[in-house]
Amino acid sequence: MSELFTGELTTKAKTVAVIMAGGSGTRFWPASRTSFPKQFLSLSGSERSLIQATADRLAPLVGSEATLVVTSRAQMELVHQHLPEAAVLAEPMARNTAPCVGYAALKVLESVGDVPMIVLPADHYIRREEGLVEVCRRAAQLATEQDVLITIGIPPTSPETGYGYIQAGEPFPGGDGAVRNVSRFVEKPDRATAEGYLASGDYFWNSGMFIWRPSVILAAISEHLPKLAGSLERIGACIRKSCPDSEIEAEFEAIDPVSVDVGVMEKAANVAMMPGTSFSWSDIGSWDAWADLMRSNSSDGSGNVVQGDVLAIDCTNLVAVAKERLIAAVGLDDVIIVEAGDAVLVCPSSRAQDVKRVVEEFKKSGRQELL
Amino acid sequence: MSELFTGELTTKAKTVAVIMAGGSGTRFWPASRTSFPKQFLSLSGSERSLIQATADRLAPLVGSEATLVVTSRAQMELVHQHLPEAAVLAEPMARNTAPCVGYAALKVLESVGDVPMIVLPADHYIRREEGLVEVCRRAAQLATEQDVLITIGIPPTSPETGYGYIQAGEPFPGGDGAVRNVSRFVEKPDRATAEGYLASGDYFWNSGMFIWRPSVILAAISEHLPKLAGSLERIGACIRKSCPDSEIEAEFEAIDPVSVDVGVMEKAANVAMMPGTSFSWSDIGSWDAWADLMRSNSSDGSGNVVQGDVLAIDCTNLVAVAKERLIAAVGLDDVIIVEAGDAVLVCPSSRAQDVKRVVEEFKKSGRQELL
Repeated sequence: MSELFTGELTTKAKTVAVIMAGGSGTRFWPASRTSFPKQFLSLSGSERSLIQATADRLAPLVGSEATLVVTSRAQMELVHQHLPEAAVLAEPMARNTAPCVGYAALKVLESVGDVPMIVLPADHYIRREEGLVEVCRRAAQLATEQDVLITIGIPPTSPETGYGYIQAGEPFPGGDGAVRNVSRFVEKPDRATAEGYLASGDYFWNSGMFIWRPSVILAAISEHLPKLAGSLERIGACIRKSCPDSEIEAEFEAIDPVSVDVGVMEKAANVAMMPGTSFSWSDIGSWDAWADLMRSNSSDGSGNVVQGDVLAIDCTNLVAVAKERLIAAVGLDDVIIVEAGDAVLVCPSSRAQDVKRVVEEFKKSGRQELL
Repeated sequence: MSELFTGELTTKAKTVAVIMAGGSGTRFWPASRTSFPKQFLSLSGSERSLIQATADRLAPLVGSEATLVVTSRAQMELVHQHLPEAAVLAEPMARNTAPCVGYAALKVLESVGDVPMIVLPADHYIRREEGLVEVCRRAAQLATEQDVLITIGIPPTSPETGYGYIQAGEPFPGGDGAVRNVSRFVEKPDRATAEGYLASGDYFWNSGMFIWRPSVILAAISEHLPKLAGSLERIGACIRKSCPDSEIEAEFEAIDPVSVDVGVMEKAANVAMMPGTSFSWSDIGSWDAWADLMRSNSSDGSGNVVQGDVLAIDCTNLVAVAKERLIAAVGLDDVIIVEAGDAVLVCPSSRAQDVKRVVEEFKKSGRQELL
């Protein structure tokens, strides 16, 4: 019996939600850790963790027995605690998103059949979730009817330099008018370029959310990543024959890491973009981005975002998260303070991206207990 | 038997060190607490607490059996832990320094005799301590020979606005030339005034260190604070007759709080100032002042002052004290971070004086556990 899969996917599912939960989230240190990554944090302003919120939002569309979480073996138990009803598939090792979605496609094909998969990262933030559900419903319909790889593009609201962009082209043939062809995918731009994208109206944030049928993504992998396709073919045979896990591990070991964007989407011809116009989205890439979201939900005018036992005197735009102990802040502007029991982080908001450097330092110095 | 006094003062002492340990030190929160004030912290860069360092520095002059600590009843045990050989006298309640030095004078007079008392606050910082010892030795000699109230003035090295000043006059008659008459005491000045004081060369920082014989300070109290003198007379009778503590408490209850500077030194004619030229001194009034001292001892060029488990990346002039947990700081300039187990303080260095506002807030909101 394989230890790489737990739970069950109902064979009656017409659509399957695939949640990619592989991230380590070093930029949310000290709240996130190697053994407790970002997707398990409650960052959405509710008690629910990000991964729970991700599953919750698709439940109306797919039902709770059609949710497959792809994660690492180390996180299987934690996923099960957060989502007891979801099926969990473990990658023996992380090889970026192309192998991940191919592996998930094999599992969906084997367990359910060739029904549309809605592929979502576990650690994103969505407001007005019913808007996303509606977009996914329409995308799943299109993916049922056509052999198409659909990506969701988010209309930008600011000249964000932390996201990749999708340049949309003509309306997609056979779509409902809103769906567009993709002219090209572009990497994270500089500020001036991002401002041009924002002004043009043709560029969308690359959200990393996809909809397709398993057979269609596997065919695209065969065409554009033949070596990965070979590995996946052998892994699929293993899954069907219930080989020892060690054989799947050996196959994964040999896979070259590549993202589905770079490896497949940028090359494939049968790609469409569905604009995510009716909900708001963020990948919450840092404490700073998280604070911006919290502020947009509610603010007392000071711009302070505090959680837990915090005393703020004369502070503005303070981000303070106290998990176990009190934080007292006096006279600070635009500073982030995160207390997480065994460690405290303090940095200016503008340095939120550099929190990962702290984690790198601890890796170098062998401070495992802090990772 | 009185619970207001423990230990013993040797009757052979020629000089007695009197350490005033009544302060609460709210500006060193969260390291200092009501039950663990500043004088018990190791802020001098060594393992010894400030009160231990104070006793240590006078030991060559007075011996360890001629040290009397005046403190609150709540702190007697803590004083005993830090200074097992010192005699400890408890004030039933804090009434500022004039009652404190009068009370101590009664005890010295009763236990040892009319020998000079060297009165030092427990929570100051001294570098080149042998210089202070030499000044005290000369002052004690002068106080033996004459009925004089001696205060130590520190030659200012900066236009400090946090200290009171002493304007020195002509050489004190019968002194060694360095000793001066006092023209006047002045309160904490504004910046411009302080700069004038610094330039003039006639102004000295008021250190709060005094040398006199018990009979001389008690006579001055009789002259300038007759109501206090009456209370002290009755307290002295109580001490001699071993009355119940409740009688001393009742007397203290009725005393009006007043400092020895305002109540006695500013009014008395027989006052002299001895310049403290051969040592450096600070009352370490805040985290900021403490950091300046630590920097002046050693610096790596960044200006960072860190204690405990601290990772600082791209920080300058950072003050970080980690008592029980790790502090990670990124990209900060001129910020103070103090972690003390149950609480974390963060503020810009320029707001170090406002740490007491945090303590005030907790008093108001009844958070006793944080005081």
